[in-house]
Amino acid sequence: MNMTEGSKSAKKQNIDALNKLGQDIYGEIVKGENPYFDLPTRGLSNVKYSEEKGILVMGGGLSRRYFLNVGHVRKFIQTVAMAALSKELIQSDKHTSLRSAFYQVRRTIPGTKIDVVDDQTETNKAIEDLELITDLTREQLHINANKNGAVAGDVIIEDRGDVIDWSKMGSGGWAIPSNVEDLVFRKVGAKFVIYMEKATIWDRMNEDKTWKKLNCIIIASQGQATRGIRRLLQRISREYKLPVYILTDGDIWGIYIYSAIKFGSIALAHASDKLALPEAKFMGLTMDDIDKYGLRRHLIKFKDVDIARLGQIKNYEWFKKSKEWMEELGKMEKLGAKVELDAFTAKGLSFMTEHYLPEKLKEGKFLD
Amino acid sequence: MNMTEGSKSAKKQNIDALNKLGQDIYGEIVKGENPYFDLPTRGLSNVKYSEEKGILVMGGGLSRRYFLNVGHVRKFIQTVAMAALSKELIQSDKHTSLRSAFYQVRRTIPGTKIDVVDDQTETNKAIEDLELITDLTREQLHINANKNGAVAGDVIIEDRGDVIDWSKMGSGGWAIPSNVEDLVFRKVGAKFVIYMEKATIWDRMNEDKTWKKLNCIIIASQGQATRGIRRLLQRISREYKLPVYILTDGDIWGIYIYSAIKFGSIALAHASDKLALPEAKFMGLTMDDIDKYGLRRHLIKFKDVDIARLGQIKNYEWFKKSKEWMEELGKMEKLGAKVELDAFTAKGLSFMTEHYLPEKLKEGKFLD
Repeated sequence: MNMTEGSKSAKKQNIDALNKLGQDIYGEIVKGENPYFDLPTRGLSNVKYSEEKGILVMGGGLSRRYFLNVGHVRKFIQTVAMAALSKELIQSDKHTSLRSAFYQVRRTIPGTKIDVVDDQTETNKAIEDLELITDLTREQLHINANKNGAVAGDVIIEDRGDVIDWSKMGSGGWAIPSNVEDLVFRKVGAKFVIYMEKATIWDRMNEDKTWKKLNCIIIASQGQATRGIRRLLQRISREYKLPVYILTDGDIWGIYIYSAIKFGSIALAHASDKLALPEAKFMGLTMDDIDKYGLRRHLIKFKDVDIARLGQIKNYEWFKKSKEWMEELGKMEKLGAKVELDAFTAKGLSFMTEHYLPEKLKEGKFLD
Repeated sequence: MNMTEGSKSAKKQNIDALNKLGQDIYGEIVKGENPYFDLPTRGLSNVKYSEEKGILVMGGGLSRRYFLNVGHVRKFIQTVAMAALSKELIQSDKHTSLRSAFYQVRRTIPGTKIDVVDDQTETNKAIEDLELITDLTREQLHINANKNGAVAGDVIIEDRGDVIDWSKMGSGGWAIPSNVEDLVFRKVGAKFVIYMEKATIWDRMNEDKTWKKLNCIIIASQGQATRGIRRLLQRISREYKLPVYILTDGDIWGIYIYSAIKFGSIALAHASDKLALPEAKFMGLTMDDIDKYGLRRHLIKFKDVDIARLGQIKNYEWFKKSKEWMEELGKMEKLGAKVELDAFTAKGLSFMTEHYLPEKLKEGKFLD
C-alpha cells in the first residue's frame, strides 16, 4: 500500500468516525433518549505530564454534554454542526480555516431567531470538542491553521501531484503549508533536522549552504512553531528516524519554544500525540556557550517579564525531572541575562554556521 | 547582457557608490577639512505625495551632518561603519539582517571606552541614513528584512542557481525571500497578479487552483506586505507589464495595506521608487459588494480604533484626490462596519474563487 492509498483509507476512517457520531445521536433520538457526548475536561487541571510518553496529555476527567439540557444544548448543536462541516470537507477533499469555518457554520435555526453561532470563539471551542470526541486533529478534520515558515534540505516530496525538491528552492525555500498530513516523502537524503525560531537565522544557514555542508534539513518559522511545522518535524523524525535539534536564542523564550515542540503545550495537550516530539533535543544557545564563545559582552539584561517566565518554567515538572535542565535554568537565573544567536555575527557573519553548529554536532552533547 | 551580468554590474555600481563615500571623507580629512554628509530630513514634515509619480517621496529638506561636531560625530561614525559593512557584504556576496548588522558593527573604539553602537535603534537609523545618502535600498546594501509569504502561479524563476517552477509547489508555494533583487524570471505565463493580506485566503485560492483557472500569480503574506513582497510585485509589474490587484477585507486596514503597496508608506518614503507600485488596483471587498453579494448579516461593527484610522486615511491627500475613493470611504464611515473575505464561505467554501473573483475581473471595475 503506498502513501496515497494510505491517505485515502485514513480519510475513510475519519469520515466513518464522524458518521458514527451522527448515527449514535440519531439512534438515541429515535429511541426517545437524550443524546450526549463524553469529552475530557479541558483546562490546566486536567492536563498532566506523562512520564511514560514524555509528553503532556489529558487527564482522566470527563464531562458529559447533553442535547436536552438548557446549559448544554447550544454547545451540543455547535459541535454537531462542526462535525457535519468536517465530513463535507473531507468528502470534497477541501480544507477550511478557523475563521471560514465560523462563517460556514453561522446560520439561523429555521423558525427561530437563534443563530447557531454568534462568535468565532464558539466555533473554535466546537472544533476543539470535536478533536476530543473523535480523537482526530484539526488537520484531519480539514480545518487548517495559519501557515508560516520555510524549509530547505536534501529531501524530495510529493504534494498535491507536484514533485518538490527541497534542495532546489533558491533563497526562499519551500513554504510550509498548514497541513502536512497528505505530503509524501519520495527521498530523504538528509541525516538530521534543525528547527530554528528565527527566519533570519534560516536565511544565514541557507545562504551559507549549511544544510548542504552538514547534510541536514533546516526549518524556520518566526517565533513559536506552527502546527504544520510541528507535525512536519514529527513525521520526519518518526518516519525516517532523523534526530531533530532545536536552535534558539539563549533565553527563556527559546527554551519555551523547545518545550512546546518536545512536550507539547498545555492548550494543545489533547493533540500531543500528533504534535509533540519527545525525541527533540536542544541545540542551544546554552549558558555555558556564553563564555565558550566569548559572547559575554553581548548579554542582554533580563526584564521582569523574562524573570517571571523563567520562574514558571522552572516549575514545570517536565523540566524539574531533569537535573541538567534545572542546572541550566539555575545558571540562567543567576546570570539574569540572555544572549541571542545573532550575537555570533560579531565574530564573523558565518561564525555560527562554520564553528558553533559543527562543534555542537561533533561534541554531540545536547540538553534533552 | 543577461540578468546575471546585469546584477554583477549593478553590484559593482553599488560598491563604487560606497567607495566614493569613503574617498570623499578621506579626501576632506587629508585636506584638513571637516567631512560631512548631506541627507534629506526625515519625518512626516519632509514627506510629500508626488502628483506626477503617484507615490510618496521625500521633500527637499536637507540636513548636513559633520564629523567634527559633538552632536553629530556619533551618528557620522555609525553611518561610516555601516557603509564599510555593506561594502564587505556586497563584495563577499553575503547578506545580513538588521539584528545581525547591529552585532557586526558593535565594537569599542580603540583607546577609549566608547562603543560605536549601544543599541539596534542606532544601527537601524544608520542604515536608513545610508539608504538616503547613497540612494541604495537596504536590499541593495545587502541588509535583509524578515521574510514572510508564499507565491504560486505559472512562472519559472532562477534564484541562486536553482530553477524554480511556481506552478509546481504543492500546497505550500515558494517561500518569498526577503531580497528579490537577484531573482531572474525565466518564464512568465501568468497574465496578472493578486496580492492578498491573508494566508488562509491564499490557501483557498491554491487549493481551488484559482491561479491556474484565472492564469494569475497569487501572493500572500500575513498582514502588511513585506519589503520582499512589495519589491517582487513591483518587478513583475514593471518587467512584464502585469496588472497587480490587491485583495483585502472590506475594512480600513485592508485599504491601508493597499495604500502602502501602491503609494508607499511614510516611514519608507525614501524607498518609494523601489517599493511603491502606483499601478496597483484595489480588488475589494468594497462597500457595494456587501449588498451585491448578500453579506450584510456578516457585518462587524467598527471599534473606536477603526473609526480613528478611517478618519486619518480620509485625510491622506493621495485618497483625497480621488472622488471614487472619497465616496468609498464615506460609505464605509456611514456603515460603521467592516466585512471579511472569509464571509464569502457562508455562501459556499469556494464562492469567492468561483464567483466573486471571476465577476470582478469580468467587470474590470477596480478602485484605483
